[in-house]
Amino acid sequence: MLYFIGLGLVGAKDITVKGLEIEDYGRKLILADRDMVEQKADELLKESEVSDVEYLVVGDPFVDMVLREVNAGIQCRVIHNASTNAVECCGLQLYNFGETVSIVFWTDTWRPERFYVENLYRVVCIHHPVHRSRLQTVSEVAMACYIKQADRHPVTEKICVGLARVGAEDQVIRMGTLCQLVSCDLVDMLCLSAVIPDILQDLMTDISTYSS
Amino acid sequence: MLYFIGLGLVGAKDITVKGLEIEDYGRKLILADRDMVEQKADELLKESEVSDVEYLVVGDPFVDMVLREVNAGIQCRVIHNASTNAVECCGLQLYNFGETVSIVFWTDTWRPERFYVENLYRVVCIHHPVHRSRLQTVSEVAMACYIKQADRHPVTEKICVGLARVGAEDQVIRMGTLCQLVSCDLVDMLCLSAVIPDILQDLMTDISTYSS
Repeated sequence: MLYFIGLGLVGAKDITVKGLEIEDYGRKLILADRDMVEQKADELLKESEVSDVEYLVVGDPFVDMVLREVNAGIQCRVIHNASTNAVECCGLQLYNFGETVSIVFWTDTWRPERFYVENLYRVVCIHHPVHRSRLQTVSEVAMACYIKQADRHPVTEKICVGLARVGAEDQVIRMGTLCQLVSCDLVDMLCLSAVIPDILQDLMTDISTYSS
Repeated sequence: MLYFIGLGLVGAKDITVKGLEIEDYGRKLILADRDMVEQKADELLKESEVSDVEYLVVGDPFVDMVLREVNAGIQCRVIHNASTNAVECCGLQLYNFGETVSIVFWTDTWRPERFYVENLYRVVCIHHPVHRSRLQTVSEVAMACYIKQADRHPVTEKICVGLARVGAEDQVIRMGTLCQLVSCDLVDMLCLSAVIPDILQDLMTDISTYSS
């Protein structure tokens, strides 16, 4: 059996009781990075044919890998947890803002911009940073793309909402333009962050009250 | 301090470890039904000024009540959990399908239809039944509204996706028209259900594989 266990948003105690009971702390822990999941999933599949394998995922397990397991005839079970839904704590509902996209961390040599679309200001940007040492923020990457493509897209002063460390005791919710958000305390530490654009005017007061 | 603790989708073990540590099982448990939350919230506010109050919510705590607490100057904290995001286990993403609405349980004398909108087939219908004895399904209510308003809205054969007991071991995912879903085993038991319409053609095969 292959278990997909959602770890939730912030720390070790965000796992559910059900997930904790399934998780076997005595077993060998393998870091499943992007390469492992995308290119070496067969090893995982092979092992789960003969014994229980727990696949731990920050947030809520995604469906793509589950479908691969099912197609391979392997029994699997998903233990759900909080994920992108938690950003609605700012008072805005995700379905109003179009597609949810991931902003990956940039390195000196790897700076993909595919997430950047013409309607950035209607896109919800969410990522799950895994490496604590990389303190780059969603706002910084979005802003860098924005400046780079400014000749093709008009500069606007639309208000965005930035969230950092959602679910943690030091959770932060801030409003402002992308420029303003870059200078905010929105550094991510193994947490969920989001930039939710095109904010509805009548919700502004509520949000600023909650985030202050 | 007022804590809003998400209980997750299915049973007692879907609470997070963090939520469980905050929850005090020795204390008096008050059933907070709709009347209590909407009309008697002041009592809750008053008590949380002098002692810790834990407000337990099936799924993930909603923001409306949090904002009321903040406006009243009361410290509060949200412990997130799985909620509507879990329906994406069927392979479809919520943001593709417009507004998320709640379908309430009908009684003999109370049969609200406000959730029924012209674009029902693009609406995601989600509810959290609380009373185990009410085994009415999302599909039945949606179908009843649909038939009633058939003279105003053309009958179509668009495919929907129905989910029942999401997150439980006996989770069910089925595809079909609303008529077909009514006859499926989609009875809800304190779980999340959804009807996701206008399914994308290229996902049909994956979904039918996963749900079989």
